[in-house]
Amino acid sequence: MAIVTLLTDSGESDHYVAAIKARIITINPGIRVEDISHKIKPSDIGHAAFVLRAVFRDFPKGTVHLVGVDSTGNRGDAFIALQLEDHFFVGCDNGLFGLISDRSHQQLVELNTINAISTTFPERDVFAPAAVKLASGVSITNLGKPMPNFRKMIDRQVKATKKQITGTVIRVDGMGNLITNIPKDAFDILSNGKQYTVQFGGEKFRRIHTQYNQAEQGECFIVFNSLGLLEVGIYKGNAAELLGLDYDSTVSILFEE
Amino acid sequence: MAIVTLLTDSGESDHYVAAIKARIITINPGIRVEDISHKIKPSDIGHAAFVLRAVFRDFPKGTVHLVGVDSTGNRGDAFIALQLEDHFFVGCDNGLFGLISDRSHQQLVELNTINAISTTFPERDVFAPAAVKLASGVSITNLGKPMPNFRKMIDRQVKATKKQITGTVIRVDGMGNLITNIPKDAFDILSNGKQYTVQFGGEKFRRIHTQYNQAEQGECFIVFNSLGLLEVGIYKGNAAELLGLDYDSTVSILFEE
Amino acid sequence: MAIVTLLTDSGESDHYVAAIKARIITINPGIRVEDISHKIKPSDIGHAAFVLRAVFRDFPKGTVHLVGVDSTGNRGDAFIALQLEDHFFVGCDNGLFGLISDRSHQQLVELNTINAISTTFPERDVFAPAAVKLASGVSITNLGKPMPNFRKMIDRQVKATKKQITGTVIRVDGMGNLITNIPKDAFDILSNGKQYTVQFGGEKFRRIHTQYNQAEQGECFIVFNSLGLLEVGIYKGNAAELLGLDYDSTVSILFEE
Repeated sequence: MAIVTLLTDSGESDHYVAAIKARIITINPGIRVEDISHKIKPSDIGHAAFVLRAVFRDFPKGTVHLVGVDSTGNRGDAFIALQLEDHFFVGCDNGLFGLISDRSHQQLVELNTINAISTTFPERDVFAPAAVKLASGVSITNLGKPMPNFRKMIDRQVKATKKQITGTVIRVDGMGNLITNIPKDAFDILSNGKQYTVQFGGEKFRRIHTQYNQAEQGECFIVFNSLGLLEVGIYKGNAAELLGLDYDSTVSILFEE
Repeated sequence: MAIVTLLTDSGESDHYVAAIKARIITINPGIRVEDISHKIKPSDIGHAAFVLRAVFRDFPKGTVHLVGVDSTGNRGDAFIALQLEDHFFVGCDNGLFGLISDRSHQQLVELNTINAISTTFPERDVFAPAAVKLASGVSITNLGKPMPNFRKMIDRQVKATKKQITGTVIRVDGMGNLITNIPKDAFDILSNGKQYTVQFGGEKFRRIHTQYNQAEQGECFIVFNSLGLLEVGIYKGNAAELLGLDYDSTVSILFEE
Repeated sequence: MAIVTLLTDSGESDHYVAAIKARIITINPGIRVEDISHKIKPSDIGHAAFVLRAVFRDFPKGTVHLVGVDSTGNRGDAFIALQLEDHFFVGCDNGLFGLISDRSHQQLVELNTINAISTTFPERDVFAPAAVKLASGVSITNLGKPMPNFRKMIDRQVKATKKQITGTVIRVDGMGNLITNIPKDAFDILSNGKQYTVQFGGEKFRRIHTQYNQAEQGECFIVFNSLGLLEVGIYKGNAAELLGLDYDSTVSILFEE
């Protein structure tokens, strides 16, 4: 079964999302359309990339992900389709796709369509028809001319030494939990049985939990979450509000000698 | 494939929308239910009519649009089903349907059901069964007794002369863009190669863009959008907040001699 | 057709909901996934139980309801699956399921899975696979070991005498309407043709309407709603704001001698 997912910053109080879906099912009623989110903050590439990176691999290989976030980008940004980790992506080459995977793309084309020039609604008029073609089995090379590369921006990096790992909050989720870019595998290698202290804001903790509910309600939890990333929160509370941390705040793990 | 779309002001934190869907798929599991929006401002007929008018034609002809906005209307408002531009609509005759098309309806009936009298949840108990019947191929004339007309209200009108076009903001979308009722075809006829000035708030501009991204981030854009309507915004910003304009604000285009 | 509904407190701006759906349709693409709501207030069991109780019976018997609200509960809470009123439910034994029905469960098991111990995302890794099994026809007894009972909390009770019924607001819906726990059947028995006064805040009314629109716009309505519960609101207005009532506010009906 062909699946097209939708990820947009269009919100849910307008006609935009329904117009994209209507276009898809009008062209091919056999396609299953699944929403990832339409609540991406307007033009927030970082927010969209975090969500897409976190979930695209959970869908079956071959799924087509239509990304309508900052879709008109900056003047000159191309409309593209790419194959990456056996998934397909359609959207604007505004830098977003460079943030969703560390792998190289398998195929990449600039979408070749007269609509691309004239429409002010590329999600409906350019991305939807391209996504339907991919989901219907058309080869990506038939959608446009090959490009060598899409835009890549440098993402926030973790600094890791034998003495400490320092990362940043890369997403404050809807519950106020603070997800950092500190990966479990780096911690596993560097901690190596040592004692450690986790620091953020004015707080210090000497334990990383394996389950959220190892903290009592109102207490701070620190876990490596289902994405393998260090996450800090207040159990059944809003950590962003209560701890005063936000996107880009620093979180460190200091190892003892 | 039979499609029923849903457009309501019920929000998404209650059981209402799920109850409507459950009723539909319980009666006929073969129906594809597609959300247009459930974030219409409570009882805001203008908001709902704008969204429905903007998108209903993107769905295949024969689609049934269940409209649960201001569903109990005013005392005496009938529950109706109508065929218009080869689409079907089911809802309350509260004036909304008079705003979605300039064409005459093809068929119109007052829904004939004992539930209409006794239920306090007409979307689930009256509209859903009627929508399923229409989507399942039952003739609209079997759903109730014919009515001559549904309620029509006078919508905000554009004033157009050889010297100027004056319209109003008819929708502030979720990104803060200001969509007016000034149509591109009126502009095309009246501008006729003349120089012009677009005015709103204290601002004056002498250019209409063809693409949003012809404005730089933070700059004002003015485009005829995908609906063929003049739209004013701040590129990657919130124009409603930044320009101090709102629903019903005036926007004018003045032509030079 | 197998249906799995989703009810979570995950919000719509993250990857969580899409990850659950992706897991379900990856395991069994034939399943129809229907959202009930993802806007439950974080960890608010009462909100979730109200919504689920209000709508689950509208779905076909045999529907599987995946409940991802307060999913990690308190330390030691089991992950469970139960059959109740011929519907299936999968979630955390945090007390929520004790609030959705007054009937006894038909079957109840503690989910038996190695994932239950190690995952921090039980909705995706434990509940979704269990829900798919149930929706695919696997017997609930194959999902884990039988338990005698799930957690039950005492819900807010109505006090009913010959002289008066006193209840509380158990839900302020998205439109600001105040839904109480006063049931129509208790009123019907006790009123028995007597005059009565409905009291809440400083207000007194001597009539219960049968339709919302028996109140004029801006006036107070009092109806027994589609759930058979007394509901107070301002027609086309926000009663919670205008009347100063909230969750847990008292509403009484006093009968005259």
